[in-house]
Amino acid sequence: MPSKATIDLNCDMGESFGVYSLGLDREILPYITSANIACGFHAGDPLVMERTVKYCIEVGVEIGAHPSVPDLVGFGRRTMAITPDQLRTDFIYQISALRGFVEAHGRTLQHCKPHGAIYNQAANDVNLAQAIAEAVKAIDPQIILVVLAGSRMVNIGEDLGLKVAQEGFADRAYNEDGTLASRQLPGAVIHDPMIVAKRVIKMVSERKIQAITGKEIQIGRIDTICVHGDTPGAVELAKNVRKELEAQDVGIKLVPISQSI
Amino acid sequence: MPSKATIDLNCDMGESFGVYSLGLDREILPYITSANIACGFHAGDPLVMERTVKYCIEVGVEIGAHPSVPDLVGFGRRTMAITPDQLRTDFIYQISALRGFVEAHGRTLQHCKPHGAIYNQAANDVNLAQAIAEAVKAIDPQIILVVLAGSRMVNIGEDLGLKVAQEGFADRAYNEDGTLASRQLPGAVIHDPMIVAKRVIKMVSERKIQAITGKEIQIGRIDTICVHGDTPGAVELAKNVRKELEAQDVGIKLVPISQSI
Amino acid sequence: MPSKATIDLNCDMGESFGVYSLGLDREILPYITSANIACGFHAGDPLVMERTVKYCIEVGVEIGAHPSVPDLVGFGRRTMAITPDQLRTDFIYQISALRGFVEAHGRTLQHCKPHGAIYNQAANDVNLAQAIAEAVKAIDPQIILVVLAGSRMVNIGEDLGLKVAQEGFADRAYNEDGTLASRQLPGAVIHDPMIVAKRVIKMVSERKIQAITGKEIQIGRIDTICVHGDTPGAVELAKNVRKELEAQDVGIKLVPISQSI
Amino acid sequence: MPSKATIDLNCDMGESFGVYSLGLDREILPYITSANIACGFHAGDPLVMERTVKYCIEVGVEIGAHPSVPDLVGFGRRTMAITPDQLRTDFIYQISALRGFVEAHGRTLQHCKPHGAIYNQAANDVNLAQAIAEAVKAIDPQIILVVLAGSRMVNIGEDLGLKVAQEGFADRAYNEDGTLASRQLPGAVIHDPMIVAKRVIKMVSERKIQAITGKEIQIGRIDTICVHGDTPGAVELAKNVRKELEAQDVGIKLVPISQSI
Repeated sequence: MPSKATIDLNCDMGESFGVYSLGLDREILPYITSANIACGFHAGDPLVMERTVKYCIEVGVEIGAHPSVPDLVGFGRRTMAITPDQLRTDFIYQISALRGFVEAHGRTLQHCKPHGAIYNQAANDVNLAQAIAEAVKAIDPQIILVVLAGSRMVNIGEDLGLKVAQEGFADRAYNEDGTLASRQLPGAVIHDPMIVAKRVIKMVSERKIQAITGKEIQIGRIDTICVHGDTPGAVELAKNVRKELEAQDVGIKLVPISQSI
Repeated sequence: MPSKATIDLNCDMGESFGVYSLGLDREILPYITSANIACGFHAGDPLVMERTVKYCIEVGVEIGAHPSVPDLVGFGRRTMAITPDQLRTDFIYQISALRGFVEAHGRTLQHCKPHGAIYNQAANDVNLAQAIAEAVKAIDPQIILVVLAGSRMVNIGEDLGLKVAQEGFADRAYNEDGTLASRQLPGAVIHDPMIVAKRVIKMVSERKIQAITGKEIQIGRIDTICVHGDTPGAVELAKNVRKELEAQDVGIKLVPISQSI
Repeated sequence: MPSKATIDLNCDMGESFGVYSLGLDREILPYITSANIACGFHAGDPLVMERTVKYCIEVGVEIGAHPSVPDLVGFGRRTMAITPDQLRTDFIYQISALRGFVEAHGRTLQHCKPHGAIYNQAANDVNLAQAIAEAVKAIDPQIILVVLAGSRMVNIGEDLGLKVAQEGFADRAYNEDGTLASRQLPGAVIHDPMIVAKRVIKMVSERKIQAITGKEIQIGRIDTICVHGDTPGAVELAKNVRKELEAQDVGIKLVPISQSI
Repeated sequence: MPSKATIDLNCDMGESFGVYSLGLDREILPYITSANIACGFHAGDPLVMERTVKYCIEVGVEIGAHPSVPDLVGFGRRTMAITPDQLRTDFIYQISALRGFVEAHGRTLQHCKPHGAIYNQAANDVNLAQAIAEAVKAIDPQIILVVLAGSRMVNIGEDLGLKVAQEGFADRAYNEDGTLASRQLPGAVIHDPMIVAKRVIKMVSERKIQAITGKEIQIGRIDTICVHGDTPGAVELAKNVRKELEAQDVGIKLVPISQSI
């Protein structure tokens, strides 16, 4: 008995900057349902943001903000001792900036997914999680907050009255306790599209995933699956995951986050 | 016979950054009716922006965006060969970011006044003026565009359907053709509050100003007067200008831009 | 029996940026013997760096580099998960840039003192300490590395063949284990110039300091004392510390770091 | 009668930044004799700078600084009203930073070539040209200044006592007056390696070039030819130009700038 019949596929994009091109945004767009667009602090610039918003609208992909700490040279991947007030206002700034482009094109901002180091920091730090949730709420409580499935951010967001989407990683190995296995470990990243697709189906329909130890573990609700779009291999993987999910007998419908939560 | 009974006093603020403090925002606020808040490209950061928005709301001063080209070290004062598309998207980004803070506090963004070099560039460059007007319109056509009185931006903004406020400078000397006299010239900046106040009254009620040559010239409509808030002397000047304008027999009412246009 | 007859007083400076002015560099310069000049990553810009180098030369104060992690809005005060390679190259970049100004004015760069969060991180993280020491060595092993007295950086620097100066804080309370007491604690910062001066004398001549608990503790060698220059009170404190130290019977000579180690 | 028997081929490199990769540095290196390495203001970061210095040393290519105005998002291509003092100190900062990496690896900085918009601005603005020349001289008068052949910078650099290398563009069309034809014109950029190689040979050995009008014009001394390394086609072009130049009967020797001036 499937516990869920819908899932969203999300992907980071709009991470080019000035003359620098990054990611295969246009190639990945046909296979996803929600896009997380960088907001200028770890990547992206206003021209790139507008262009990426247009791409999403053309293809019919829903748009979310992908804000970060101010660390362009480190691509937002370096954990930083930012204060909750700095984080909250940095996020209001970035989400509002992206929202400006989205609304200028007649659309509504669907969600917000924190980028990089702060995504993981906030999963474990109540004050930072609270700061992010408050930023989203301050702008519009209808914006869905995307967080690591099962993390402390889920309750913090929901307690503030936000809609929270729980994110899973189909191409990443999990530990038996449901956390992500370190990228350093062999087998931590899964590249075979068929295996990834099967993991997605199991995560969504049975709420189960095989841990890196081989043991099958129970996980929580998954509303959206993160796919990557930065290499030709990643695009191919996304394409195949989508194809598998759309096969007739799977019974899972691909929908944007707003319909998968 | 006074041609106008209302005027707005505007001042740039929120130009601090990180540990750096600039301007006497709280000291000048009681004397002005509209504030232009920096948006992070030439000055300001998200924490400063939120704090400044709160100050304005406390005092009842209307809020505008004060966007610039991306030049923090040059404080947006260096003319830059920015393309219209870069300018337009830089402005959508910055205005939307500030608007996020304003709306999060339950207020509406009243206006947008370009900062520094681009204010003057756009007064003379149709493409840049058009880019700025389009940015404002893309966000909300109700946002008033503040421009140099008599400049080409007036028509460009109005042709796009925007409300345009024309700005005068009471403490700056004018040439006989109605343009501002170069700051390099002796007497180009007027420091005496009484003289400045009298110039304001004449600009507003008679649309006249004494040029640097001594000749009295006719000028166009003035909706808002720029005052400065970066030195104790500037605060004193603003205080006295306000006091003079509020003197019983002057017949000019100080109101925010939204009511002075 | 005094264990030491010389001490250096160092102060951070050149922390202005663009239009932003910070610190009372010219006021504090007469009272110190070594200056730590910001290098553009947490504060400072090329114009400020050159101007500050000139000030130091005029007064006869020795010059050091004060590099940081790239965090202008956070003033380098936010701990950041920088990699050793990023840190090493960030420091080679910044120290070399400042050195360019110093040598262009015919002087030699005396020392390097890390700024802010990374100063404390490196005191506890062997890899970051190593990265900093390697950066200094790569440029010139004659540049003195200034570190927290008694920290692990002392050995790491010396093992690489560097001259290491140990820094004490006369206006900061210490714990009984010789570490600095948290700024959050009452009494953690000492403002009375006479008390600070007496602490300096005791630190230098007896290697003793009264801990925040009241107990007098033994500390290691101190080669340089950090004074602050960002408030009128700080300048007054530096002035008085210097005056006390130069009093006839103290027997401590104020000299630059190059002569105090 | 050939007027010259040596020429340098230079190429911009080290223009990656953080996660962003730009240019085919390793592919182009075997074909050039001098590299212009970005210094962090328009492109490049400390890690990239060090890595690029190492690449050059491995291949035996001489190293120069490629400083710019501070405009990362615009890649230094936007003309900016920078003051001579800002420019001079920005350049001392950047050149010294790169020089730090070069000397840390036991090499000497050969030259400095300004990047992007400021290269062209300085060719026409005496004060900016002077500022650049003074920056180079302040660091080391042995550093060769690379400038647009025939521009006003030649005399300004030489009058200050600098060694000046004159740069030609073999893949760019010239006007009859010896200036570069606008990139907007058809035929302004030449892609055929054989034609480019022939133009190089003619520029070097006869000081002649065919203008975009078809007329053959006399040009001044050319010490170095700029090649590009940002596309596979550019690498192929550089490879073929080198091959043609090294053909037995040409009589032109490829040497670094230090030997071609």
